[in-house]
Amino acid sequence: MKRVLGIDPGLSRCGYGVIEVARPHGRAIAAGVIRTEPGVPIPQRLARLQREVAALVDEYRPDVVAVERVLFQVNVSTAMGVGQASGVVMACAAQAGCEVSEYSPNEIKLAVTGWGGANKEQVIAMVRSQLNISAELKPPDAADALAVAMCHLAQSPALVAPQ
Amino acid sequence: MKRVLGIDPGLSRCGYGVIEVARPHGRAIAAGVIRTEPGVPIPQRLARLQREVAALVDEYRPDVVAVERVLFQVNVSTAMGVGQASGVVMACAAQAGCEVSEYSPNEIKLAVTGWGGANKEQVIAMVRSQLNISAELKPPDAADALAVAMCHLAQSPALVAPQ
Repeated sequence: MKRVLGIDPGLSRCGYGVIEVARPHGRAIAAGVIRTEPGVPIPQRLARLQREVAALVDEYRPDVVAVERVLFQVNVSTAMGVGQASGVVMACAAQAGCEVSEYSPNEIKLAVTGWGGANKEQVIAMVRSQLNISAELKPPDAADALAVAMCHLAQSPALVAPQ
Repeated sequence: MKRVLGIDPGLSRCGYGVIEVARPHGRAIAAGVIRTEPGVPIPQRLARLQREVAALVDEYRPDVVAVERVLFQVNVSTAMGVGQASGVVMACAAQAGCEVSEYSPNEIKLAVTGWGGANKEQVIAMVRSQLNISAELKPPDAADALAVAMCHLAQSPALVAPQ
């Protein structure tokens, strides 16, 4: 059974979500957030993120790691932390032999809700509905990461076709 | 003998330079550039950078890894690649147990030439002069990386004091 690990990269909070391919929609088997402490020096925080992502890849053995593409935001210092985090995640995933795909925020919203301008609440509602998650999905970073994985599935028809 | 590995981070070209602490100035024991191919997907390039930096740390066993701080430049797409590369370098160095320090381009120029607005040629000339390197120092990324390591030494008097 194919698995996709979605990542919403960040230094303070990095969301992750694992979806197992099933028809007609995937099945979420894990979701959560890797947090690193703002008071700790950035190199140690990045090293911790690297270890946690390596542990996720080791535990869930995804075939694909789908990462939300970093765009430049208003807050320049946050954007740099997100860029550094995404670099660590992608290097780690490629090193582990996973296929790595990047998707822009608009591609993700469009794939999950049908509209590139959807808001966070709409994305979370569609993630819960399509993955049949009745419980509240918190924190939002975990839902965002599942949305990244769903975007990859939506763009990979071969992955969900019967074999 | 203490060693400092200086890094001028980048995705296409990442400069490195190792300085061994000696009085009155350090001694360069290695300098070069890690290159990754622009045609290869970014995750694979970042994974390769991670392997190469890990190999450098393993070979030279630096106590400190000094990294040039990424600032936002005119070219946004280049800045993101540099940010991702610096994230991979810092995570790798911290994971290996090295102390990691970051210095801004101005701090580096100021420490090496005495003037924060120095140009590339002036930096290279001072690196060659202070490290007694008579050969031409190419490519510039290698000289820049040695300058980062020299900046760390200049700001760490305890490192060069007799023990």
